[in-house]
Amino acid sequence: MIPVGILGATGMVGQRFVQLLENHPWFEVKHVIASPASAGKSYKDAVAGRWHMPKDMPEDVKDLIVRPVDDVKGAGKNCRFVFSALDSDIAKDWEEKYAEAGIPVVSNSSAHRHTDDVPMLIPEINHNHTDMIPIQKKNRGWQGFIVVKPNCSLQSYMTPLFALHRKFQLKKAVITTMQSVSGAGHPGVSSFDIIDNIIPYISGEELKSEVEPKKILGRIEGSKFVHDNSFEISAHCNRVGTVDGHMACVSVEFETRPEREEILKIWKEFRSLPQQLKLPSAPEQPIIYREEENRPQTRLDRDAGKGMAVTVGRLRECNVLQWRFAGLSHNTIRGAAGGGILNAELLKAKGYLN
Amino acid sequence: MIPVGILGATGMVGQRFVQLLENHPWFEVKHVIASPASAGKSYKDAVAGRWHMPKDMPEDVKDLIVRPVDDVKGAGKNCRFVFSALDSDIAKDWEEKYAEAGIPVVSNSSAHRHTDDVPMLIPEINHNHTDMIPIQKKNRGWQGFIVVKPNCSLQSYMTPLFALHRKFQLKKAVITTMQSVSGAGHPGVSSFDIIDNIIPYISGEELKSEVEPKKILGRIEGSKFVHDNSFEISAHCNRVGTVDGHMACVSVEFETRPEREEILKIWKEFRSLPQQLKLPSAPEQPIIYREEENRPQTRLDRDAGKGMAVTVGRLRECNVLQWRFAGLSHNTIRGAAGGGILNAELLKAKGYLN
Amino acid sequence: MIPVGILGATGMVGQRFVQLLENHPWFEVKHVIASPASAGKSYKDAVAGRWHMPKDMPEDVKDLIVRPVDDVKGAGKNCRFVFSALDSDIAKDWEEKYAEAGIPVVSNSSAHRHTDDVPMLIPEINHNHTDMIPIQKKNRGWQGFIVVKPNCSLQSYMTPLFALHRKFQLKKAVITTMQSVSGAGHPGVSSFDIIDNIIPYISGEELKSEVEPKKILGRIEGSKFVHDNSFEISAHCNRVGTVDGHMACVSVEFETRPEREEILKIWKEFRSLPQQLKLPSAPEQPIIYREEENRPQTRLDRDAGKGMAVTVGRLRECNVLQWRFAGLSHNTIRGAAGGGILNAELLKAKGYLN
Amino acid sequence: MIPVGILGATGMVGQRFVQLLENHPWFEVKHVIASPASAGKSYKDAVAGRWHMPKDMPEDVKDLIVRPVDDVKGAGKNCRFVFSALDSDIAKDWEEKYAEAGIPVVSNSSAHRHTDDVPMLIPEINHNHTDMIPIQKKNRGWQGFIVVKPNCSLQSYMTPLFALHRKFQLKKAVITTMQSVSGAGHPGVSSFDIIDNIIPYISGEELKSEVEPKKILGRIEGSKFVHDNSFEISAHCNRVGTVDGHMACVSVEFETRPEREEILKIWKEFRSLPQQLKLPSAPEQPIIYREEENRPQTRLDRDAGKGMAVTVGRLRECNVLQWRFAGLSHNTIRGAAGGGILNAELLKAKGYLN
Repeated sequence: MIPVGILGATGMVGQRFVQLLENHPWFEVKHVIASPASAGKSYKDAVAGRWHMPKDMPEDVKDLIVRPVDDVKGAGKNCRFVFSALDSDIAKDWEEKYAEAGIPVVSNSSAHRHTDDVPMLIPEINHNHTDMIPIQKKNRGWQGFIVVKPNCSLQSYMTPLFALHRKFQLKKAVITTMQSVSGAGHPGVSSFDIIDNIIPYISGEELKSEVEPKKILGRIEGSKFVHDNSFEISAHCNRVGTVDGHMACVSVEFETRPEREEILKIWKEFRSLPQQLKLPSAPEQPIIYREEENRPQTRLDRDAGKGMAVTVGRLRECNVLQWRFAGLSHNTIRGAAGGGILNAELLKAKGYLN
Repeated sequence: MIPVGILGATGMVGQRFVQLLENHPWFEVKHVIASPASAGKSYKDAVAGRWHMPKDMPEDVKDLIVRPVDDVKGAGKNCRFVFSALDSDIAKDWEEKYAEAGIPVVSNSSAHRHTDDVPMLIPEINHNHTDMIPIQKKNRGWQGFIVVKPNCSLQSYMTPLFALHRKFQLKKAVITTMQSVSGAGHPGVSSFDIIDNIIPYISGEELKSEVEPKKILGRIEGSKFVHDNSFEISAHCNRVGTVDGHMACVSVEFETRPEREEILKIWKEFRSLPQQLKLPSAPEQPIIYREEENRPQTRLDRDAGKGMAVTVGRLRECNVLQWRFAGLSHNTIRGAAGGGILNAELLKAKGYLN
Repeated sequence: MIPVGILGATGMVGQRFVQLLENHPWFEVKHVIASPASAGKSYKDAVAGRWHMPKDMPEDVKDLIVRPVDDVKGAGKNCRFVFSALDSDIAKDWEEKYAEAGIPVVSNSSAHRHTDDVPMLIPEINHNHTDMIPIQKKNRGWQGFIVVKPNCSLQSYMTPLFALHRKFQLKKAVITTMQSVSGAGHPGVSSFDIIDNIIPYISGEELKSEVEPKKILGRIEGSKFVHDNSFEISAHCNRVGTVDGHMACVSVEFETRPEREEILKIWKEFRSLPQQLKLPSAPEQPIIYREEENRPQTRLDRDAGKGMAVTVGRLRECNVLQWRFAGLSHNTIRGAAGGGILNAELLKAKGYLN
Repeated sequence: MIPVGILGATGMVGQRFVQLLENHPWFEVKHVIASPASAGKSYKDAVAGRWHMPKDMPEDVKDLIVRPVDDVKGAGKNCRFVFSALDSDIAKDWEEKYAEAGIPVVSNSSAHRHTDDVPMLIPEINHNHTDMIPIQKKNRGWQGFIVVKPNCSLQSYMTPLFALHRKFQLKKAVITTMQSVSGAGHPGVSSFDIIDNIIPYISGEELKSEVEPKKILGRIEGSKFVHDNSFEISAHCNRVGTVDGHMACVSVEFETRPEREEILKIWKEFRSLPQQLKLPSAPEQPIIYREEENRPQTRLDRDAGKGMAVTVGRLRECNVLQWRFAGLSHNTIRGAAGGGILNAELLKAKGYLN
């Protein structure tokens, strides 16, 4: 078992890491790191009354003593790498300090998403971006390194688009998302603001949804990532009153127009390195197409593939672009902690965590 | 006061007609028509336990005796015209029989929307389509006539698009709607299906949202309407768990690209015949642009202009088409009974109800 | 494996039976029975588009041919007993016909709850009421028999009250329930009626919540059950906009006032015959007390013990009666199909299904 | 017009005061007071992006400059009295300072509810408690004075109980409330915590619901209020996912058992001083009994009497106490700012604001 730490372990994403890592076959949470206010308390006490997961807190973690974020040395002794669920405003500096100290950082924060030598991974799509890791270490003179995952909003459409992009070349997409309240963390969205309401705005979310795909589909040139600017995405991001699950309505055009049967076949047969490596958190079938005319649905499909698969449906011709469909993924599993864990599994399988 | 009847008076749209016509300055409900099961009962008893309006049932209507739909003669005696809130499957025949008997029918049903000599009116947009009325009467040999209103889903974007279309010529739009449960009538959507859920499908709704605008912006040629096929709309229609109000996220392209300030000015200054005629239900300002970055919102903006205005916001450039915005309207007021009443007011002002 | 049938297999409770029996160690669904409209179709086709369970339909059941309810002989050949999820209005007659034909009926319907020789079982409470089965068979001259389960609303408080009743003798309880929409079946409650709303009324539910406990705690006298009338319950039943889970706020008084620590100890240590027999669906701990001041909560606690446990919390003194607490159970698992399955497991363990 | 100030004008209750006082026939908002962070800004700017009312901000208030709370003199010049919507933790001191400076304080805060010479008013119930005002002024040596209103949770049952109490003498009541999220202010309850959920706990709320009635029904003895301890209330307070409106399920017993028809007559005919004085915010009918078996409902009845009436229904015998019913009131109108305004109207009519 590889001992791991969690930076920002007491927040909502941190808790999800703790929960998803319970009984993980490779990783064991041995070190929990949080703000000075929590440091010194047991994890159980530090989280008391603010445990937001559907299952009870794992027994193994309850009595771990929360460490302060500045105890980088302690982390180095207790764990081989850390997951970072730090708030974006403090993530940049701390993640760099951990990496510098030789501790790989598998981050869910947005701080380093646009740092040009930091891979932003969706393992089914750009697993080869891990090739940047030795370059990053060299660039920075670090023993450790940082990898990040993209924003939760794009998980509902990015893999289905990528599967087609390889053959038909993505050109443009107009995408409207309907995003659950858990995406805003806790307390996040005020209930007074969202009950019987739609808010057609989430701060910063549209830009992330449009730009991050360009890096994910980009390539390494020299010592940095270069965006793929051959396509354009226009995103409308809405907050809706569902608990978990982000839905996306997608209109899309490719360089070469695919046929309906080609699309369905590609989605059905899509497998990638995480499936070949049988990574523990990799869904057997990353893209699940539902034939029913009214699927995917947020509550019914978010848990597909233990929350790691993307469910698509309603493929039909678009009057303006070429094709339309709806996509759904679980924003706090695939879109957050589960995605981070899959990244770490990929790194482990590739030998970056030895 | 003009005595009016309501076909399908006991259903949800019929109830909304009854409520909105309380204290109407021109129209007085004198005749309520429903299925044989209700006929002979007082309106109060026929609706007992199924009154779904936010205010109590108007006193004047409680004791009206519900008439069977086949008593066309009785309707002819008691009212000068009828609003129709009949279910689509029976609306076609009965509306024709009433029109044939000399009773104008102002319909909310979808049955005659695509009948090529029946005007489908949004009074701010195509008030001149009433010119078809004498032609229709002649075509059919009727004393009365039928006019209809379009589907509720397109009210959130059609007027804002039309205001710009006059100058810049609409070419294409990709539109995602988030539609409230009241749009499905009562009982409509099962609560089990929509709580903590998004359903990315509403039967028939996307086709209506795409095709009806072509007739609304079409023109009369000879004895029928000819669609305007110079533009294409692609609609993604979603059912969401809000009570009232349909939200639309719109990406749009025009023949001539408008500037941001032109768009805002046109929306702000947009007025049309209903405003010039000061029709009682016409909103003073048909299109309200909100400057806040997070508006319109369903619960906060649906009642703007007493539910008859469209609220727009978030105008910003689109990466794929030219412009993006969000639009909202009240689906059971502007989108249903209120829209029907405004149509009748237009007809009255133009002398068609004498 | 014991082959079982399901009467009313296509409805919401029927579907839940199908789902919960997937991979059951003792029972295998071999026979599905529904209305004439469905008969002859495969189960998959009969349910098409109306499958409301969180997981996909089990493969084994998809191709079973739905049988008409009047094919009692066919049922007799294919299964050893049947679960009944029939609507109450037709359940009485058909359940009797199946029992008469020698097929034990484990019913979730309310039809026979007050038949005085039919046991109404909560296995943790009145497992000895199965002693009525031979009497019932003799009374009726049947080869088979009928047992029923009580209404879903009382599962949230009945077991916690019973655990204390054995020692302290229940005298009175004032109980307010907040019941999820799934309790009304599908389509059940209209979404328009319950979003942003509380309905303080559920037809028939309060009487059931008050009277059924008297039979459950009653005793066999001669050939019938005699109610325990030594206590009174007053129930306020509310419909609320949650998906699953019934919450109850309970104020209670016993003949002998228990101490706080006694209550907590009794609840914690409460085990009964289903636990001793290790029945497959029996929760290890039937009553789970949560120490947090804000638990149980509907969404967080409904799945405790795989939906078969009751979660209680907030034990505090009552100003009017003796004690107050909140209780929660899963209405469609423990309160419906799961409760029925546990009843069948009890019957099997006691030898009534040979 | 009487110029008034609002202490804590930028918060949710403060905003509600601003909204409800628009077009008030007696009072005009001339002075808005908030925390140092807002002081010096226009009200519009201070609230920017946080205006939570259903209607737009009144024009008259937008450009008022927000004053710091410590500018007591400025308040004395600009307004004849102040409404206080201060947070409880700072309310006690500041309200006293304003009263000391000769400025009457009509408070919505809980800080002084249990101060024994401060009246806690529901004008329909204990309008005579204003007799304490001269005593309070004398006790304290103040030119001004403080009056408060009770907690929002008890408005749904207190007036209906009082109407009966006068004749039959309240003895005990077991009450379960289902309280809307707006009762917690903004941001208040996290949406993640309440969607598809019930939380059977609101900090401090049960004690308030039980004890405040004793003061409201108490009497003046010498220089202070003495509680009426002749009855006991047991409250179960739940947070539910509705926007506005607090529902209460009540089981109650009186010294003398009233007959059903007596109860209904008393409720129907109940009028009190606010109605006799025709206070502008007083509902014509303070207690509205609905005959339908499924009313009151939160969304349908909260706006009765412009949010100032209490709607009751479902009167039926209780198996444990004597009678049961459901009551509903609007928590942010009658239960908060509207209640405060009615208090001020009562004071004005009685000459305390000259």
